[in-house]
Amino acid sequence: MACCINKASSAAAVHPLDPLSPEEIAATVLVVRAQHSNVVFNAVTLKEPSKVELKAWLASKQGPTALPRRIADVVAIGQGSKVYDAHVDLTENKLIKWELVDGVQPMITPEDLQIVEGIIRRDEGVIEECRISGIPREDMHKVFADPWTIGFDERFGSSIRLQQALMYYRPDGSDDCQYAHPLDFCPIFDSDALKVIHIDVPKTRRPLGKQAPTNYHGKKHGEYRTDLKPIQIYQPNGVSFSLEGRILSWANWKFHVGFNYREGIVLSNITFNDKNTHTGVRDRSIFSRLALAEMLVPYGNPEAPHHRKHAFDFGEYGAGAMSNSLTLGCDCKGSIQYLDFDCVTKHGAVRTVKNAVCIHEEDAGILFKHTDFRDDSSTVTRARKLIVSHIFTAANYEYCVYWIFYLDGTIQLEIKLTGILNTYSLNPGEDAAPWGTEVYPGVNAHNHQHLFCLRIDPSIDGDNNTVMQVDALPSEEPVGSAGNPYGNAFYAKKTKLATMGSSMCDYNADTSRTWDIANPNCLNPYSKKPTSYKLVSREVPRLMPKEGSLVWKRGGFARHAIHVTKYKEDQLFPAGRHVPQTSGEPSLGLPEWIAANPHESVDNTDIVVWHTFGLTHFPSPEDFPVMPAEPMSILLRPRNFFTENPCMDVPPSHSATPSDVRTGNIGYTGGIDVNSKLASHL
Amino acid sequence: MACCINKASSAAAVHPLDPLSPEEIAATVLVVRAQHSNVVFNAVTLKEPSKVELKAWLASKQGPTALPRRIADVVAIGQGSKVYDAHVDLTENKLIKWELVDGVQPMITPEDLQIVEGIIRRDEGVIEECRISGIPREDMHKVFADPWTIGFDERFGSSIRLQQALMYYRPDGSDDCQYAHPLDFCPIFDSDALKVIHIDVPKTRRPLGKQAPTNYHGKKHGEYRTDLKPIQIYQPNGVSFSLEGRILSWANWKFHVGFNYREGIVLSNITFNDKNTHTGVRDRSIFSRLALAEMLVPYGNPEAPHHRKHAFDFGEYGAGAMSNSLTLGCDCKGSIQYLDFDCVTKHGAVRTVKNAVCIHEEDAGILFKHTDFRDDSSTVTRARKLIVSHIFTAANYEYCVYWIFYLDGTIQLEIKLTGILNTYSLNPGEDAAPWGTEVYPGVNAHNHQHLFCLRIDPSIDGDNNTVMQVDALPSEEPVGSAGNPYGNAFYAKKTKLATMGSSMCDYNADTSRTWDIANPNCLNPYSKKPTSYKLVSREVPRLMPKEGSLVWKRGGFARHAIHVTKYKEDQLFPAGRHVPQTSGEPSLGLPEWIAANPHESVDNTDIVVWHTFGLTHFPSPEDFPVMPAEPMSILLRPRNFFTENPCMDVPPSHSATPSDVRTGNIGYTGGIDVNSKLASHL
Repeated sequence: MACCINKASSAAAVHPLDPLSPEEIAATVLVVRAQHSNVVFNAVTLKEPSKVELKAWLASKQGPTALPRRIADVVAIGQGSKVYDAHVDLTENKLIKWELVDGVQPMITPEDLQIVEGIIRRDEGVIEECRISGIPREDMHKVFADPWTIGFDERFGSSIRLQQALMYYRPDGSDDCQYAHPLDFCPIFDSDALKVIHIDVPKTRRPLGKQAPTNYHGKKHGEYRTDLKPIQIYQPNGVSFSLEGRILSWANWKFHVGFNYREGIVLSNITFNDKNTHTGVRDRSIFSRLALAEMLVPYGNPEAPHHRKHAFDFGEYGAGAMSNSLTLGCDCKGSIQYLDFDCVTKHGAVRTVKNAVCIHEEDAGILFKHTDFRDDSSTVTRARKLIVSHIFTAANYEYCVYWIFYLDGTIQLEIKLTGILNTYSLNPGEDAAPWGTEVYPGVNAHNHQHLFCLRIDPSIDGDNNTVMQVDALPSEEPVGSAGNPYGNAFYAKKTKLATMGSSMCDYNADTSRTWDIANPNCLNPYSKKPTSYKLVSREVPRLMPKEGSLVWKRGGFARHAIHVTKYKEDQLFPAGRHVPQTSGEPSLGLPEWIAANPHESVDNTDIVVWHTFGLTHFPSPEDFPVMPAEPMSILLRPRNFFTENPCMDVPPSHSATPSDVRTGNIGYTGGIDVNSKLASHL
Repeated sequence: MACCINKASSAAAVHPLDPLSPEEIAATVLVVRAQHSNVVFNAVTLKEPSKVELKAWLASKQGPTALPRRIADVVAIGQGSKVYDAHVDLTENKLIKWELVDGVQPMITPEDLQIVEGIIRRDEGVIEECRISGIPREDMHKVFADPWTIGFDERFGSSIRLQQALMYYRPDGSDDCQYAHPLDFCPIFDSDALKVIHIDVPKTRRPLGKQAPTNYHGKKHGEYRTDLKPIQIYQPNGVSFSLEGRILSWANWKFHVGFNYREGIVLSNITFNDKNTHTGVRDRSIFSRLALAEMLVPYGNPEAPHHRKHAFDFGEYGAGAMSNSLTLGCDCKGSIQYLDFDCVTKHGAVRTVKNAVCIHEEDAGILFKHTDFRDDSSTVTRARKLIVSHIFTAANYEYCVYWIFYLDGTIQLEIKLTGILNTYSLNPGEDAAPWGTEVYPGVNAHNHQHLFCLRIDPSIDGDNNTVMQVDALPSEEPVGSAGNPYGNAFYAKKTKLATMGSSMCDYNADTSRTWDIANPNCLNPYSKKPTSYKLVSREVPRLMPKEGSLVWKRGGFARHAIHVTKYKEDQLFPAGRHVPQTSGEPSLGLPEWIAANPHESVDNTDIVVWHTFGLTHFPSPEDFPVMPAEPMSILLRPRNFFTENPCMDVPPSHSATPSDVRTGNIGYTGGIDVNSKLASHL
């Protein structure tokens, strides 16, 4: 595979938000080890400077020579599942915080996941359960385990680091898909002692099924269809973006591309160069920081221990830590810029994921078009998008995250779900309904949701912002009244989310509900409305687990589509800093912060908007043995932000004015793609 | 402009659903004229054969030599706004129906639109209103009129064919955008007598504004940005689809591409070649016919005469009749197949819209991907889509319609809205709120909706189908109960829409509501659920005009997201066959059909599903002077239709099995795009 090492991405920091370099990670390890030689590392990542420090640095224009102090945020684990939160000052090579944190468990790392299967295959209890299932001892190498965090199990609590192992089998050989042969029992693994401490066995046993093997990569070369002819994308003059360090500039956009083990891509200091600015500022500020902050995947089968299947993929595993190394000509096509990702291993080495982040452009169809019916004078202008993406694998599932920037000022977050369904065994004749679907003989795929939480730290023309809920409503005046004689009147009702405690709200499709993140101090000179970015999100299912349920308690952020909080530097994670094995009593993160200060104003101040969105998935056989990618999107759109369509500067494909038409001129044709051809099959 | 005549598309019919050829249109005109020499033509289009005839022809495999009788459906207009519905049998060159239809007015044609402006400019009443607005008589050539159907105005009724002229001005010359200078009065135009019969003048006058001119094509070559480098798309081996007559085949898909003046693109006999079929049929039937059937654009300003602004773009103007002639390298890129569209003119000539329909392929990102975390064995497969599109201009607005077919069996209907806002004048200091937004000084863009009605004639494994409403719901059992101990249980509740009268239903985002169009006679052998296609639609605003309002009465189809009717051959148009100047008393189309037979079963029979979707638009300055395209989509997805992911036959970009990884083989690499490159700017 073409795997291209991009040296730039692992270079020393030149911006305060640049991820820790390999050297900085290594230095952090040395500083910690000097005082605490017995710990292993769970995470070493950049502790971002405060907004005050960041702004001072940006204002000073001093560049990399005067970066704010570089601080490493460290999670370390000592013997007996002891968890330490630490900070290392990398400017002074000094341990400035070392704190034992009681009653929490940190994230499961890829190394933690890797270690389980081998141990489980040798565990006598597991071997016995396999025998009961119909698997002889000599076939234990065909047994596979997907280790998950245990979520929370009241029998085991939070003091020992635990994983639950979802069990599978490959009947014929190493190339079968194990998810087609689930096993019915679930070992509990002590990640500290590295042993199985319990096995959950269901009341109804479901022995290994007799279904034929299947997989997602099984065809021989000759079995693939041959009628799909190549679609090739060329950028003969190179790409239209530039990258200085990790500052990405493209068309009118400029922003910093960060990345960490937990959130994956982090975009900061997002500005748009407004040539018609009414604010006195050309590079207008839009968002301080955008990142996916959490995801919750609750499953809907009530039978224990399936209730424990509710992964918090960001807080329990890390969207960055699970990143794929992307390959040229596969994951994206065209002209690609990759960035690598460096993280720490358990024993303090540096692991580099090559090509963790992909940056590229794509054509995006028509940007705008109009034809005047009088004379056929017309303009058609072509759109394109800049995409910053990464893909991570969470055991069976793949999540493809695309941050998409458009010429018209829109930001789209698109997520594609693919990979393989989580499966469980089903006896012959057993009905999977209503909590799941038999997607393949003997294979039950349980109902589930994917609920993402996007953390939006806005700075719409500055930090003092307000969120307005916007509902499309008919006029209150009755049909035939003086104010609504024909009954057609309707308007956008705007409701201010004024305090943290009153900011929680849900989606309402009936009113086409959106949310404007607005600057009440900055009015659009034409519309006289506050400059704003509108959150448009149409895939907003409610949290299916009921109020008071374990999932509801642990994943408080998912109870509402929107929460607004006053900005606080350390509030990044809406289900808590350490998520595995939280009981939900109390609910950590968002519910905790809001309960602590319900009356705190979020009006015309520095705020953070938390948006939960996603989808509810009732599996079907089409999703097996590998799911066709299912896309889902949210939009952040400028509304009353600009004084005109901000992409009028894009060269049209073709533009003929009325006077061109009248005088027979061909008009502007500079943007026509002269490479387009008539289909050649005729 | 590269304007490419495709002879195939205007050829003689070889399939019963092929549009009328130019020769057939000419023959129709001759037959009508032979008996009715004084009429003008409003429409001449194919009357599609009945399903029985069509099926018999398909079964006979006799081809073009034995087509069912070709019938032309004709609307003609005689003096005094007399409207005739007629049928011409083209096999026998015979007028077989000639019917005077009372109290209706047929669609406004492009010719009807063109004629108004010139007459209005010479009308003394209009000249006087222009003078009052501040426009001297010698500047009348700078006055422009967008003629709309009058919708319905109780003062004028339905017996005379009327247009209302929305008035604009270009201050400096022919290249200004007239929508930046709206005028405040509205002439009513008699399309039969070709004269202004009335002028609506508002109580509050709004003289011509002093705002500077603007437009959407105004930049000089040097003013466009120069940093967007070309993105070129090549298909060196040609396209992957083939076209026999108008039967389009691509990957496993096959369907007929029709087109008419009213609906634009019509897709019929849509099948998918299922290599793993469980039904005994390889080319499995999915939809008999798919077409957009209507669109309603109600505006939200209650002040008369703005209530008349509620265009039915399909029934009042014709999405096909208003089609753009598409240009290579502008509207779509890559390798393009065009189809022309032929229609009749007022005086019986044939007008051909070259390149009315575009057929092309696009890359579509990742189709599916999975990496096993154990060994990094992985498969990534690339998606593509086949797109059948057309674009039409409805006065100020552009609608781009994309029918998109995916390899995984999904059909997406994407619509992009672009063009120019409908505008009205605003006095200095006047507030546009709450019914509109000042998008440019003195320019008020009124709130409005775009509500599309998609007619789905399903044949999921045969004609006998049923619609199930599907709602995601938590278990009814309380948290802690035996049936729901941890409170996480949830399921898909399915509600059968059993009769026409009980079939009307609305969207519910809270339950992620979808609708399964299912064949209850055909169960998926794995899931034991009926084979189905699921309608997934997330942009489903309610109709804003209130119950009992004029719009509510005229656009009955828009009251609900879903209606299901028993299939009837002549029920194609949900707001009635002739829409202009209907009073809504009674409501025509869907409400009429359902009221006539509320108890008629739509369960396990030949049904039609009508889906209304769209968006509510509160304008902002970013939308002016031309709107960046706003996309909106619905999906039709196979659920329990196939027994496995139906695109497993697509060659992957790269696939390495566990045994490849173990043995050091590189795996399958046949699909890697070797043309992808690292970004060349570094």
